[in-house]
Amino acid sequence: MIKVSVIGSGNVAQHLVKAFSKTTEIELVQVLSRKKEAIAHLISEDKICTSFSELKLVDIVILAISDNAISEVSKNIFLENQLVVHTSGSMSMDAIDDKHRKGVFYPLQTFSKLKEVDFREVPICLEAQNDNDLKMLNSIAQSLSDTIFTITSNQRKALHVAAVFVANFVNHLYQIGYEICSQNELPFDILKPLIVETANKIKSLSPIDAQTGPAKRNDTQTINAHLSFLTDDNQKEIYKLITKSIIDNGKKL
Amino acid sequence: MIKVSVIGSGNVAQHLVKAFSKTTEIELVQVLSRKKEAIAHLISEDKICTSFSELKLVDIVILAISDNAISEVSKNIFLENQLVVHTSGSMSMDAIDDKHRKGVFYPLQTFSKLKEVDFREVPICLEAQNDNDLKMLNSIAQSLSDTIFTITSNQRKALHVAAVFVANFVNHLYQIGYEICSQNELPFDILKPLIVETANKIKSLSPIDAQTGPAKRNDTQTINAHLSFLTDDNQKEIYKLITKSIIDNGKKL
Repeated sequence: MIKVSVIGSGNVAQHLVKAFSKTTEIELVQVLSRKKEAIAHLISEDKICTSFSELKLVDIVILAISDNAISEVSKNIFLENQLVVHTSGSMSMDAIDDKHRKGVFYPLQTFSKLKEVDFREVPICLEAQNDNDLKMLNSIAQSLSDTIFTITSNQRKALHVAAVFVANFVNHLYQIGYEICSQNELPFDILKPLIVETANKIKSLSPIDAQTGPAKRNDTQTINAHLSFLTDDNQKEIYKLITKSIIDNGKKL
Repeated sequence: MIKVSVIGSGNVAQHLVKAFSKTTEIELVQVLSRKKEAIAHLISEDKICTSFSELKLVDIVILAISDNAISEVSKNIFLENQLVVHTSGSMSMDAIDDKHRKGVFYPLQTFSKLKEVDFREVPICLEAQNDNDLKMLNSIAQSLSDTIFTITSNQRKALHVAAVFVANFVNHLYQIGYEICSQNELPFDILKPLIVETANKIKSLSPIDAQTGPAKRNDTQTINAHLSFLTDDNQKEIYKLITKSIIDNGKKL
């Protein structure tokens, strides 16, 4: 059994703790959280600790904490020759304090506390300083997921930027759709099949082949009608910029 | 049996023809297409016609054609007291020639020739000039779909704009994710589970509750790192504008 401890109690920490509890290959030894109550519903109380001095030596300590805290928290771990990994898409492996063996264990998914996630479908991106540690990270990742990638820090940075576009920004466009529906007394539910189909299309078509709509057809009449319809300046700006981007993209082909 | 004819051979026409062929309540009488070969794989040849003079009087003629063609094509239909509907999200019902009983039959979905669609999950938005025609449209819609809405022309316009944001623009963000992956030798497949989960989250969470990412946290360090990472001016502009919109949205709450 590989012995793992998790530091943190946010979205990623909670989803990892839940996923580890379901595996037979991993022993979740401790969870370090400043607030016991944040994690108490997921793990027995004797496994929760609140101070760094209580941490036991394990095979791997996973920092599931905010990017800004990685450097300081890893300094506060006083275990010797400990493999410490973070779960951040954007931070370099070197953010971890030099006294540790370092690594990265980045699950590429959007985690919300209120929504269950099937970890077997979450791609996990790994990085380590040496082959042995990478092998161990790989075993842990395999216990959770069917898709594992070993990528460089620079590739991970690219992936994180791409993820912001295809998840965070996409969700904001859903929000704009929601607002337009509200303003016109339409239920947002009416858009949900379209939203799900637009995502599912990507499984079998490349985004360029899946593109439809007035911008793709360079249909200026509809584009202008939409711009006159929109009253919110911010929505207008976004409409103009992405429409221009789709049209320019078509010219490149 | 309700007798239906379809004019057109594009994405929407083809998906409608396929869907009608599977129902028992609808008799698809004719399909009018300038090019026989565009539709020949979907329907027996004796039902395909290429000139308006061949059109028979039916319960309803559905124009599944481009927005700009609705007015002229409907002028060319010389059947008397015929119910003629279009399938456009953005055109007024009045685009149809005055000699017809007019209506709208707008399936709110993204249709690509290469991808099958389950019509039962496609919301169909209806509009008609009188109650009898609306009832007939409702019967036809029920034979295809489980979700039917009667909405005004103005609501349909709003819905079409919202659909551009949550489908066409979203797909373009997938395209940007695809480009960032390509430039960094990452398979686009790695983003697909995130894309699908982002869409699925919307089934149980409102977009505002589902929002995650650096802009939502107002994490300027990560935002600036992403902006330095991006080299394409267009991608940078889109990143800045949507990030600002998410931050401003947070302030409104």
